Amino acid sequence: MTVRFGLLGAGRIGKVHARAVAANPQAKLVAVADAFEKAAKEISAAYGAEVRSIEAIEKAADIDAVIICTPTDTHADLIERFAKAGKAIFCEKPVDLDAKRVEKCLAVVDKTKAVLMVGFNRRFDPHFAAVRKAIDDGAIGKVEQVVITSRDPGAPPVDYIKRSGGIFRDMTIHDFDMARFLLGEEPVAVSAHASVLVDKKIGEAGDFDSVSVILETASGRQAIISNSRRATYGYDQRIEVHGSKGMVAAENQRPVSIEVASEKGYTRPPLHDFFMTRYIDAYANEIAAFIATVTKGAKASPSGTDGLAALRLADAALKSAKTGKAVQVKLD
Amino acid sequence: MTVRFGLLGAGRIGKVHARAVAANPQAKLVAVADAFEKAAKEISAAYGAEVRSIEAIEKAADIDAVIICTPTDTHADLIERFAKAGKAIFCEKPVDLDAKRVEKCLAVVDKTKAVLMVGFNRRFDPHFAAVRKAIDDGAIGKVEQVVITSRDPGAPPVDYIKRSGGIFRDMTIHDFDMARFLLGEEPVAVSAHASVLVDKKIGEAGDFDSVSVILETASGRQAIISNSRRATYGYDQRIEVHGSKGMVAAENQRPVSIEVASEKGYTRPPLHDFFMTRYIDAYANEIAAFIATVTKGAKASPSGTDGLAALRLADAALKSAKTGKAVQVKLD
Amino acid sequence: MTVRFGLLGAGRIGKVHARAVAANPQAKLVAVADAFEKAAKEISAAYGAEVRSIEAIEKAADIDAVIICTPTDTHADLIERFAKAGKAIFCEKPVDLDAKRVEKCLAVVDKTKAVLMVGFNRRFDPHFAAVRKAIDDGAIGKVEQVVITSRDPGAPPVDYIKRSGGIFRDMTIHDFDMARFLLGEEPVAVSAHASVLVDKKIGEAGDFDSVSVILETASGRQAIISNSRRATYGYDQRIEVHGSKGMVAAENQRPVSIEVASEKGYTRPPLHDFFMTRYIDAYANEIAAFIATVTKGAKASPSGTDGLAALRLADAALKSAKTGKAVQVKLD
Amino acid sequence: MTVRFGLLGAGRIGKVHARAVAANPQAKLVAVADAFEKAAKEISAAYGAEVRSIEAIEKAADIDAVIICTPTDTHADLIERFAKAGKAIFCEKPVDLDAKRVEKCLAVVDKTKAVLMVGFNRRFDPHFAAVRKAIDDGAIGKVEQVVITSRDPGAPPVDYIKRSGGIFRDMTIHDFDMARFLLGEEPVAVSAHASVLVDKKIGEAGDFDSVSVILETASGRQAIISNSRRATYGYDQRIEVHGSKGMVAAENQRPVSIEVASEKGYTRPPLHDFFMTRYIDAYANEIAAFIATVTKGAKASPSGTDGLAALRLADAALKSAKTGKAVQVKLD
Repeated sequence: MTVRFGLLGAGRIGKVHARAVAANPQAKLVAVADAFEKAAKEISAAYGAEVRSIEAIEKAADIDAVIICTPTDTHADLIERFAKAGKAIFCEKPVDLDAKRVEKCLAVVDKTKAVLMVGFNRRFDPHFAAVRKAIDDGAIGKVEQVVITSRDPGAPPVDYIKRSGGIFRDMTIHDFDMARFLLGEEPVAVSAHASVLVDKKIGEAGDFDSVSVILETASGRQAIISNSRRATYGYDQRIEVHGSKGMVAAENQRPVSIEVASEKGYTRPPLHDFFMTRYIDAYANEIAAFIATVTKGAKASPSGTDGLAALRLADAALKSAKTGKAVQVKLD
Repeated sequence: MTVRFGLLGAGRIGKVHARAVAANPQAKLVAVADAFEKAAKEISAAYGAEVRSIEAIEKAADIDAVIICTPTDTHADLIERFAKAGKAIFCEKPVDLDAKRVEKCLAVVDKTKAVLMVGFNRRFDPHFAAVRKAIDDGAIGKVEQVVITSRDPGAPPVDYIKRSGGIFRDMTIHDFDMARFLLGEEPVAVSAHASVLVDKKIGEAGDFDSVSVILETASGRQAIISNSRRATYGYDQRIEVHGSKGMVAAENQRPVSIEVASEKGYTRPPLHDFFMTRYIDAYANEIAAFIATVTKGAKASPSGTDGLAALRLADAALKSAKTGKAVQVKLD
Repeated sequence: MTVRFGLLGAGRIGKVHARAVAANPQAKLVAVADAFEKAAKEISAAYGAEVRSIEAIEKAADIDAVIICTPTDTHADLIERFAKAGKAIFCEKPVDLDAKRVEKCLAVVDKTKAVLMVGFNRRFDPHFAAVRKAIDDGAIGKVEQVVITSRDPGAPPVDYIKRSGGIFRDMTIHDFDMARFLLGEEPVAVSAHASVLVDKKIGEAGDFDSVSVILETASGRQAIISNSRRATYGYDQRIEVHGSKGMVAAENQRPVSIEVASEKGYTRPPLHDFFMTRYIDAYANEIAAFIATVTKGAKASPSGTDGLAALRLADAALKSAKTGKAVQVKLD
Repeated sequence: MTVRFGLLGAGRIGKVHARAVAANPQAKLVAVADAFEKAAKEISAAYGAEVRSIEAIEKAADIDAVIICTPTDTHADLIERFAKAGKAIFCEKPVDLDAKRVEKCLAVVDKTKAVLMVGFNRRFDPHFAAVRKAIDDGAIGKVEQVVITSRDPGAPPVDYIKRSGGIFRDMTIHDFDMARFLLGEEPVAVSAHASVLVDKKIGEAGDFDSVSVILETASGRQAIISNSRRATYGYDQRIEVHGSKGMVAAENQRPVSIEVASEKGYTRPPLHDFFMTRYIDAYANEIAAFIATVTKGAKASPSGTDGLAALRLADAALKSAKTGKAVQVKLD
């Protein structure tokens, strides 16, 4: 079976998904929609798809599934529309920045029994997936502590920051999902500290750029997350998980793995400097997983509920950072 | 100038210091005291020193300095006695488990103008010292986040746990000192989570075995500490410091650095399994630094005040873990 | 400009090149030929190409370039035919196992002024290419010694061995090309030792499975090559180049870069176990370079002459291994 | 039992051994002899030994063993004298630069049944010893290929070069011993290439500074040695051994193992820049092994015969480099 796709949103991340669809033998990119027609045309030309309006895709008989890459504030509405239209839905995170709106949207999804997968791409990184597999295989015994390092090469423009929902909902949310993916139990408490160390303008916009978070589960498992909006040496993405029998870790990925030795010492080039090159395999695997979900009629994972859970942890972290108290959460 | 030493306490750590003194060309081990005479004799025989009583060492004209390795609850008393006796003092951490008692003791030290150095050996590890030097040299710009991983190979006996003052005062205290050594600013707030995941008996003794801590300074710098009383793969001791221009990290040390590759993959042997072999260089460097302090009449570092600061952070972490609130501290 | 391709040979390596052509925006796969029609159909179906005979491709006006992936003993003939037909030619290594036949073939290529590029894919591996770039950038000064480790995961079937021309012409030839790529001077002498340690049947077939080779240039630069037909831990492909100012090295690549630590130590998974996954980027880059050569009318590199040079080194190595003497070669 | 030592030669390496003896609880440094009295006094003062003449040490009843660190051309004579005097002998490599002279000396040693251990310190490096242990434990199956990288931080003075016997007898000799230590079979053939790439004056002195060597055993096992008199990044000492079931490797050692990441990439400090700091543990272990040999009456290893074997390989390598032929050797 071939899954026929409509792509909503032809921006940077839309292109990544278009390429993943085109390269997948079980998928076909049929149509692309974007308010900015030139962007839609560029992708449709590259992959032999049509430019259509969102309405046309909604009604199209030749489209089985949509990928939503439009601006965040349109996600929930589009999910509801396409759920009602009977399409399988892959939506970039987040469903919405407001947990209440997400709940309402997921209720619609539930009612329509639509397939909804949320784009936490990192679960599909081969290295992080291998960490999870090692845990599942019993390599480290019972999970006890998860340590997540996640540092962006550089801060986004302040305009983006203002619309982003803040660092916890925009950046740490990936790490909250990863913590849930690896902890094996839901967090029940969140402590967070948040500072402005990288760029004062981020602070003036009401946000933070450097945060540290501890999550704790009911049985006392802990996850530590360390974030910064700046890492001069590239996109720093590491995970380690400690268990009763040992530890499993995923190291950083490098575009070029050479080392030069000289009087000054041993030097390796910087890491990837962009999330799209760092996670290029993850994006392809993610779409493949979505296609498998659609063709096999399986349960989507990560689901809308996973998206909501990560958002709730983000909300709790923000509250903790502001109040100086550990905030209780109830996710399951 | 040769510094003439009296050693108080001939146990495990006493032996380490005795060897460091004997190997140092600027030092001489003159006398050893221990309630358990056989232990004292063993060391004195090995290094050509005498067995003496504490009183005799206190009054001895041929002793310039003492190393206090007796049980923790005798430290403060002995510091006061030897400060009054005009000896330079190196005391194993902690000065006392009670901050008030430490304050009183340090007041005596101040009044007598005695030299008092406290045994935070990790500052003298060549690799951690190199991390600090890289920071001082400007290699990473302004410090922003410190991440300390500190995991013991195995939990000590529950009897020890009961007398230890708890994991924060016994184990994390080293990491609090390291955080202060690297942050470049005093912490003003502490958030901690603490669990019993390794051994229920530790919980029954009123202590924890797995903790995560965030420290924050006035300008928003953060330190994250992750501790466990168990690491099946050895003594896990790592540091990384992130700054405005980059990152500096110290990796684990290994007694044997080979790698075997086979069908199962690439395998390196476990880490050191004991703090004394892991930090053997640090102990020697520490005594060398104390000798230099004594001979040059310099200010001791780490000082009694450093010992008190780390203890206050431990007290704050315990309070935070119990109350679920970030605890404010004032160290300078 | 789009380069229109005919693919000759639809086997394992043919598929790799077909995929690289299909994924390249400047190329189009027009036709596929294979004696075994089913194989040709499979590729043509996957990428929207036609199945044609070699003759039809030879005469086709809609084909600019061919990729030759047929059995080795057909390479020279096909190169001559397509050179005369005015097509640009990419040919898998080797042009032929007999240096004399190669010379004759290259004379035809020269006369026709055809573009001929030979498939030494490793030059296009991003990591090895970065080694070369570091040398060109002056990072290690003047090259002095090159060390190449090249070990296959497992020996090919003895039937293949028998037709292969022997380990030097089949396997080491890649390393001879890499040595030439990195030495910056032509080798003038070759010493080789060759043994049968992996599989007696390889010896019975008149070949070797474990070889060590030293190349020396006129100015005394040296290259060392170490080969085995077996590496239980995966496809071991490493390079290091020592120069007057330092060293540059490319490490092995791994499909999954996690590490598990336990009582037994620290374990990373094995390397890639197949040259096609190990060099997947190299194959794509190689075709891209060929396309660039064709569209820009540039000189092909590696050229037929490069193919001949590597073959001559292989012949010399075999002679050295058999005679116990350093064999002189003249390549430029 | 305490072994009472006389030290012959109070130069650089003499100091290293004096310290190792002083630090060993089963040994005592009784006397030091050196033509240059000031040097002898310095060591004797530091470790409470006497300055004596070689004759006095020869006749001394209070000395069980001698360490010979005098200039190379005195080694064979001193070994013979002290063998006849009934002392156990540890002699720095080489016994002599002339294989015939070594044979004659070893005949005397044999006749007197003296204990003679030769100073191939690298066998006692904990990491290289662990490589050998992994082989003995069967971790890699049957040994097939040994790869030894051995590069000095910088060339010695030309005056030293002139007296050294040449790079093969002075530097590569350590690697020949290591190859024998790891191959598990005696080499029967040697091919070598030798160049002057580092310093023309070395060439003018009739020596080489850059060499590559292949050793082959009767069953076809191979060892590759790569040497240079220069490595800007420090003392490069690596070993890897490939076997039927896998590979074992020992990496370089570093005085400080930190890494700094910045815009320029990830940088680790250079390696040790001096053989004495690099092999400090090896020297201590070597003397401990000699003491154990003496006290237990065991067979010394490495023995005088081991010293002779390495010298013969050096002679063969030189001949091969000069003649362009593989040279046959017979060691057992």
